[in-house]
Amino acid sequence: MFKKILIANRGEIALRVIRTCKEMGIKTVAVYSTADAESLHVKFADEAVCIGPPSSSESYLKMSNIIAAAEITNADAIHPGYGFLSENAKFSKICEEHNIKFIGASPEMIERMGDKASAKATMKEAGVPCVPGSEGILKSLEQTETLAAEMGYPVMLKATAGGGGKGMRAVWKAENLKAAWESARQEAKAAFGNDGMYLEKLIEEPRHIEIQIVGDSRGKACHLSERDCSIQRRHQKLTEETPSPFMTDELRNEMGLAAVRAAEYIKYEGAGTIEFLVDKHRNFYFMEMNTRIQVEHPITEQVIDFDLIREQIMVAAGIPISGKNYTPKLHSIECRINAEDPYNDFRPSPGKITTLHAPGGHGVRLDTHVYSGYTIPPNYDSMIAKLITTAQTREEAINKMKRALDEFVIEGIKTTIPFHRQLMDHPDYLAGNYTTKFMESFKMEAPVEE
Amino acid sequence: MFKKILIANRGEIALRVIRTCKEMGIKTVAVYSTADAESLHVKFADEAVCIGPPSSSESYLKMSNIIAAAEITNADAIHPGYGFLSENAKFSKICEEHNIKFIGASPEMIERMGDKASAKATMKEAGVPCVPGSEGILKSLEQTETLAAEMGYPVMLKATAGGGGKGMRAVWKAENLKAAWESARQEAKAAFGNDGMYLEKLIEEPRHIEIQIVGDSRGKACHLSERDCSIQRRHQKLTEETPSPFMTDELRNEMGLAAVRAAEYIKYEGAGTIEFLVDKHRNFYFMEMNTRIQVEHPITEQVIDFDLIREQIMVAAGIPISGKNYTPKLHSIECRINAEDPYNDFRPSPGKITTLHAPGGHGVRLDTHVYSGYTIPPNYDSMIAKLITTAQTREEAINKMKRALDEFVIEGIKTTIPFHRQLMDHPDYLAGNYTTKFMESFKMEAPVEE
Repeated sequence: MFKKILIANRGEIALRVIRTCKEMGIKTVAVYSTADAESLHVKFADEAVCIGPPSSSESYLKMSNIIAAAEITNADAIHPGYGFLSENAKFSKICEEHNIKFIGASPEMIERMGDKASAKATMKEAGVPCVPGSEGILKSLEQTETLAAEMGYPVMLKATAGGGGKGMRAVWKAENLKAAWESARQEAKAAFGNDGMYLEKLIEEPRHIEIQIVGDSRGKACHLSERDCSIQRRHQKLTEETPSPFMTDELRNEMGLAAVRAAEYIKYEGAGTIEFLVDKHRNFYFMEMNTRIQVEHPITEQVIDFDLIREQIMVAAGIPISGKNYTPKLHSIECRINAEDPYNDFRPSPGKITTLHAPGGHGVRLDTHVYSGYTIPPNYDSMIAKLITTAQTREEAINKMKRALDEFVIEGIKTTIPFHRQLMDHPDYLAGNYTTKFMESFKMEAPVEE
Repeated sequence: MFKKILIANRGEIALRVIRTCKEMGIKTVAVYSTADAESLHVKFADEAVCIGPPSSSESYLKMSNIIAAAEITNADAIHPGYGFLSENAKFSKICEEHNIKFIGASPEMIERMGDKASAKATMKEAGVPCVPGSEGILKSLEQTETLAAEMGYPVMLKATAGGGGKGMRAVWKAENLKAAWESARQEAKAAFGNDGMYLEKLIEEPRHIEIQIVGDSRGKACHLSERDCSIQRRHQKLTEETPSPFMTDELRNEMGLAAVRAAEYIKYEGAGTIEFLVDKHRNFYFMEMNTRIQVEHPITEQVIDFDLIREQIMVAAGIPISGKNYTPKLHSIECRINAEDPYNDFRPSPGKITTLHAPGGHGVRLDTHVYSGYTIPPNYDSMIAKLITTAQTREEAINKMKRALDEFVIEGIKTTIPFHRQLMDHPDYLAGNYTTKFMESFKMEAPVEE
C-alpha cells in the first residue's frame, strides 16, 4: 500500500481524498495556490506545499510544480481528484516517468477515451450502443433518406459548420426530410458559407444517466449502478440522484452490462463513469467516458455502502476488486451548493462566509471544504459544498433534502440553496419527470420575505 | 397520521424528533425553559412555547405546563424523547386523559417494566433469562449453600441494607462460602445494624449489551439487533457500537429471540430496549427494559437503514411494522460528546461555544443542537453532540471515528473529544476486549502540546 499520497487538487475533493487516506493510515500531502492557504484541505493534510499563485495554469495545472512537490515530500502516489489534471494524458505519463503512481487512468487510456471519435469507435467495437449518425458529410438527399430510414425517425440534420442552432433541423417523418434538407442547407450556406450536412438520430426527451464502473488490474470490472444527472444548466450538473426515477430493473441490467463490457474491453483500471443518453423509449446511447472520480460519486457510495476513493486507492495499489455488480437498495440525492446567485442568473458570488451552520442528523451527509470565516476565492469553480441525503425511498430522500436545505445556513455570500429548495418542490421533479432540457424552462420564484 | 406533535424535551433529541416530523410533513411544537431560548430545537420547530424557568422541575418535568402547551397549540401527540417524562406513567396517563397520543409506552406498561421486581418477574414468565438470585432474605448458611450450588459458582453475597461495597462478598468456590457468609454478615451488622443477606449469581466480566425492539398494536414485535454499551463511567454510557465485538451469530439470534419473546409477551407497542448483562461465557441475563427511544439509537439506524423515530410515530399512529428481524451488515460507533473536562475527572464545562466546526464526509453523522455562539446552560445533562461513524468493518468505523474526532473543533468549553480520541487508540478497545469495568482502570494520557 502507498505510504504517502499527494492530492493534486483543491476544495472539497482534496479534503474528500485526504479523509479516506487518513482512515487508511496513508500520509497526505496537500498542494495549494496562494489563494487557498486557508482552505481545509491544507489544514487537514499531514503536509502542505504551496505550488503557485491563484491562476490555475500557474498552480493546479502546473505539472512541474506538482511533480516537484511530490518529489520533495517523497509521495509515492498522486490522486488528481476531478477536473484540473485528472484526465490529462501528459500528466499521467509524467507521473509514470517519475515513478509516482497516478491514481487514475493510464496515458493511453486517457487518450483513447478522451478523444470523442476514438472513444465512440472503441465503444462500437465493444458492442456498446452509440448515437447513430452519418460517417462524414452527406453526399445527397437520396443517401440521407436511406440513412434516416435505417436509423429510424426522428432524426437531426446538422450543418458541419453549425452552431447556435443554425442549419439544424429536427425531422420527425420521412415526408418532411426533403424540405428540411433544402432549408437547412440554404440556412447553413447563408450563415457559414458551407452547406455540408450530417445526420444523427434525434434523442427524444433525453436523460443523462451514467453508470459507475470499477475495473482492476486483472481486467475484471463491475458496475455500481446508475446516477441520473439530467438536471443540468449549460452542461453543468446541479443535482443528481440514484436510482434514476426513469430506471427499470431491465434497463439497469442492460446498461450496467454494457458499461462492464466496455470497461473490460478496454481493460479499464480504476473508477470510471460511462455517460449515456437515454431516450423516452429507454434506448440508451454512449455519450462519453470519464476516466476519473466524478463530483457526484457520493450518492453511489451512500447506496452501496462503500468508499469509492478507497476503492480507487486499492485498485491503484494492485488489489483486485470483488467484481460484484450492485443494485441500489436505498435512494440518494446530491445537491451541489454553489456560491452563485440563483435569483440573478446564477452569477458567481465569491466572498467571505460570515456564518455557516451545517445540517445534520439521520441520512444527511455534507462534503465541504468551507467554514465560518472562510473567504471563497474568485479564481476557481463556484462549488462550495455537496449536500447528500439518503433514505429508503425517493420521496423520503426528497423530504430529507428539503429539511436539510432548510437547516443549512450560509451567510455573507449568495448560494444555490434557494434553487435546490424550489427544485425539491417542483411538480416535474417530484414526479421524476425531467430531461436534460428541464432547466431551459425552469424559473426561480421570487424569494419569500421573512 | 398525526397533524402536529409536541416534543416534550430539549437538546439534540428534541431536534432529532423535529427533523423526522418535518420529513413526514407533521407540524412540530417545541417547548423550552428560559435557559433554552437559543437552542436549535426552538429555532427549527414550527411553533415554540416557553414552559418555565431553567429548573427542570419547573419546566421539562412540569406536566401541567406541557399539557397546556399541547392544548394551546392543538398538538394531537406528544413525543417525550428520553429522560424527563419519557418513562413517567402518570404523564402517559394524563396524555391519555387529555386525548393526546403519548408516543411511548402505556401507563400500565411503564409501571410494569419500570419497577425492578415486577419487570424481573414478568421476564421470568416470558422465559427470558434473569440473573439468578435468592427470593428475599437468606434464612441460613445451609440454604445459601444449596442455592449457590444450584446457580453455580461464582456467586455474590450482598447485604440487603448494603451500599458502597460493604457487606458484599464474591465467592468463587463452595469451600469459601462459609467464611464469606460469616464475615459479610459481621460487616453488615457493624455497618448497618442489619445482617440480612441475599445471594446473586456473579456475572463474570460483564458486558452491557442491549437489544432494540419494536412492537406494534397487533402484538407483533421484531428485533433490530444489538448495541454494546459496556464503555460506561458511573453507569453513564460514553460510547456504543453495533455489532458488539463480543457477539456471535448464535448469541445474537438467542438474545434477539428472547427480546422479541419478551416484547410479544407483554404486547409491547413502540420502540423499546431490553438491556442484558452478558458474562464471559456468553450467558445473558435480563437487566432492565427501557420503554422509550435510547440516546444511542442512531447506531442501529445506521446499520438497518431506517429511521427509528419515524417507526415510533408510525406505530403510535397504529400502522403495523414489517416484523422483520435485522442483522447488521455494517458497523457503527457513537461517541457522546459531553461538555466535560476529561482531564479533570469529567467535570462539567458549560459556557459559550466560541467556534464550532463539524466533521463531515463519507460515513459521518452528527446529531447536535449546538452551534458556534451557543451558550450551554449549566442546568441540564452535559451531552452536546453525538458523533456517529459507519463503515463496512469495525476497524474502518474506528479509523473513521478517529479522523472525524480530529476534524471536530469546539472552542470555548472543554469537551470529551480528547477522551474518545484516546479511547479509539486503546489496545483493549481496539481488540474489542472490554467490559463494564473498563473505565475503572482507564486513565487519560496527558494532552499533547501543539
